Amino acid sequence: MNELKKQIQEVFDGYKSAVFEKDAEAFLSHYTEDIHIFDLWEKWSYEGIDAWRGMVTGWFGSLGDEKVIVDFDDIQVNASDDIAIAHAYITYKALSVDGQELRSMNNRLTLALKRTKSGWKIFHQHSSAPIDGDTLKVMFKRA
Amino acid sequence: MNELKKQIQEVFDGYKSAVFEKDAEAFLSHYTEDIHIFDLWEKWSYEGIDAWRGMVTGWFGSLGDEKVIVDFDDIQVNASDDIAIAHAYITYKALSVDGQELRSMNNRLTLALKRTKSGWKIFHQHSSAPIDGDTLKVMFKRA
Repeated sequence: MNELKKQIQEVFDGYKSAVFEKDAEAFLSHYTEDIHIFDLWEKWSYEGIDAWRGMVTGWFGSLGDEKVIVDFDDIQVNASDDIAIAHAYITYKALSVDGQELRSMNNRLTLALKRTKSGWKIFHQHSSAPIDGDTLKVMFKRA
Repeated sequence: MNELKKQIQEVFDGYKSAVFEKDAEAFLSHYTEDIHIFDLWEKWSYEGIDAWRGMVTGWFGSLGDEKVIVDFDDIQVNASDDIAIAHAYITYKALSVDGQELRSMNNRLTLALKRTKSGWKIFHQHSSAPIDGDTLKVMFKRA
């Protein structure tokens, strides 16, 4: 199980480094072709890697010369031999070209992964933040 | 796998009937003691069945004589022998005592389940709806 958790941790590490490098293909290499993603923003779902590629290239392209630091907290993994579920809190922090923090937000992240010939791949992802019941607005800072 | 999908479907059916009956203990019987839940409303997480019991009894208690009809769309299940991941769209529809629809909303739902001696139990749940990027408000109707 420790070896397995290490392998899942590598997926989280790969996510973090691909976002920092704004490398869409490195980012997408952690997903299966037939992904079904419930993402926080705008759309009810992304189905298939091409739809997800559109989101990712749009996101990275929108950043200009900013960099985004991703950090994960409280990663919890449950796995069998060929299916794993991981969930965590995630912080996205945008930095200006001279390293100043421009903005940050927290999300909650659930990953469902399957073991493939080329390692663990995400086939389902769910990210969100809770909703304030009075304003119906999203809460971006974890209390 | 068909038998297994049938077993997972029974968890969805149990969720639906427990909400309709506003039966908190029937509802909670589908969860493990050590659940970790990312729920749509207000809180970043619920950890442990007692915290979740507080949410459920508060929800059911707030309904007065209303009934809530739950429907699931596009349930997808991936499972190994002892761990399963299911995701779906969920519709909550509130009915007045004379059967009139008062309100409804859609959510996205991810369930992570493990096989126990008393059947499949949810140990992690993530529910959300997407956020409008302009208003930062939650979107409650699936397009």
